[in-house]
Amino acid sequence: MRDFTKDHSALALNTATLGHNVDGAGAGWSPERTIDACAERGYGGIVFWRRELGARAAAIGAHARAAGVAVAGLCRTPFLVGPLAPVGTQAVMDDFRASIDMAAEVGAPVLTIVVGGVEPGTKGVARSLGLVTDRIAAALDHAAAQGVRLAIEPLHPVYAGDRSCLTTLRDALDICDRIGSPHLGVAVDVYHVWWDTDLPAQLARAGERILGYHLCDWLAGTRDVLLDRGMMGDGVADLKGLRAAVEGAGYDGLCEVEIFSADNWWKRDPGEVLDTIVTRFRTVC
Amino acid sequence: MRDFTKDHSALALNTATLGHNVDGAGAGWSPERTIDACAERGYGGIVFWRRELGARAAAIGAHARAAGVAVAGLCRTPFLVGPLAPVGTQAVMDDFRASIDMAAEVGAPVLTIVVGGVEPGTKGVARSLGLVTDRIAAALDHAAAQGVRLAIEPLHPVYAGDRSCLTTLRDALDICDRIGSPHLGVAVDVYHVWWDTDLPAQLARAGERILGYHLCDWLAGTRDVLLDRGMMGDGVADLKGLRAAVEGAGYDGLCEVEIFSADNWWKRDPGEVLDTIVTRFRTVC
Repeated sequence: MRDFTKDHSALALNTATLGHNVDGAGAGWSPERTIDACAERGYGGIVFWRRELGARAAAIGAHARAAGVAVAGLCRTPFLVGPLAPVGTQAVMDDFRASIDMAAEVGAPVLTIVVGGVEPGTKGVARSLGLVTDRIAAALDHAAAQGVRLAIEPLHPVYAGDRSCLTTLRDALDICDRIGSPHLGVAVDVYHVWWDTDLPAQLARAGERILGYHLCDWLAGTRDVLLDRGMMGDGVADLKGLRAAVEGAGYDGLCEVEIFSADNWWKRDPGEVLDTIVTRFRTVC
Repeated sequence: MRDFTKDHSALALNTATLGHNVDGAGAGWSPERTIDACAERGYGGIVFWRRELGARAAAIGAHARAAGVAVAGLCRTPFLVGPLAPVGTQAVMDDFRASIDMAAEVGAPVLTIVVGGVEPGTKGVARSLGLVTDRIAAALDHAAAQGVRLAIEPLHPVYAGDRSCLTTLRDALDICDRIGSPHLGVAVDVYHVWWDTDLPAQLARAGERILGYHLCDWLAGTRDVLLDRGMMGDGVADLKGLRAAVEGAGYDGLCEVEIFSADNWWKRDPGEVLDTIVTRFRTVC
């Protein structure tokens, strides 16, 4: 396992951690200021959301690279199925391809897929997972042509109804197996998978298909399943054990901190948040 | 699969569905009135909570049997580990045995185990699951002597921090295998397991160890993970598919409706709720 106690160059920021204050409209920090703040603190990478890039993706990507900060990925595809997805296959696929284009434009090697919930009019997850598989398969040629790999991210089962009928690494790998493309892999987020005793076996199965590893913590008394994620060390996830399993499977990439925390971390000064992350990354991850 | 369209004698009420209005203190319906209301509507069984029985468990059990309503089970053991468990092994085991005694007293053949969350001072679920296994094993002789079987109920992973480090049927069966007692089995609740694509395989593995099947529904836009369960048919769980798998594994017992719904069903007249359950049971379960 890598030693992070004196080296946090493997640390990446997902900008959601700063409360989506990062934007180009003057509210909060600009993408460039966020990049510079990461560079000053020795972060190795950054992951933006589409809404933050708008029409400036190429310029923001260039700014990051010039600052020595890798653009590790882009969040994210539209929901591909379920009640929150764009209406109709054509609308889903158009926005799916647009998200791939933006990943290429900002220079992100990986685009995260959040699949969406149970398709309206159906029951259970089986039919929805079938649709997800079809839609990912249909987008892969475009992703390959753009040089972007797609990472399926299983979300916590609490979101299975509306945000992700795909809830385990096992399900994600089943889709990868069914499609069988070198441009398709998985993203592993502590928040979503920490409870799963099947995870070590599935990580070993995943191997080089692990395209991202996301850090935060699960607070024992979580008050809001969307916006009450914990800072690493404040919760009950076995962070060192999880990283050992992820690295044991062969992953040696960036570790991306993604903390949605409306009532705590989002209310703090972004600089304080970035500093805290560095300390926690070096000590408890 | 059993045909419930014209016969709901397999239907049981978990009294939580009436908003814990069932008690002996005069607030809401008494246990006896609830039993009679179930009997009038042809319910085959009822499941009480310990707080509702107090010192009158034997009399309430006798009332149910006289009314032709089976006491299908009792909710529940204390949390065995985690932040909400009684403090100290002795306190846990004393209350565990007291819950077994009450199950015997009311005449319930099955006592549900909810295992509790991550043990304070530990990370991840492994250590806690080990403690759970030890504590269940230590109570089994007492349960056997009292003629009560213990049913481990996996809870939804959203509760893994504070209420149940045990989140899948797979984990529950692993504990059953480790202990290997005919007095130990599992309870399967739609709310907790509907999202799990591994469930059909685990149900087949469970076979005759399935000691209870609990009904409700998962609302796609669940607003509160504790108190916003759906009535059968109002959510996205594949209820018929789940029952087919449960019965395919050999289960032919009661189907227990357990709906925590503070803002909807708990606000309605208990008689209306009981009638709605009968209709839904016959049509969508």
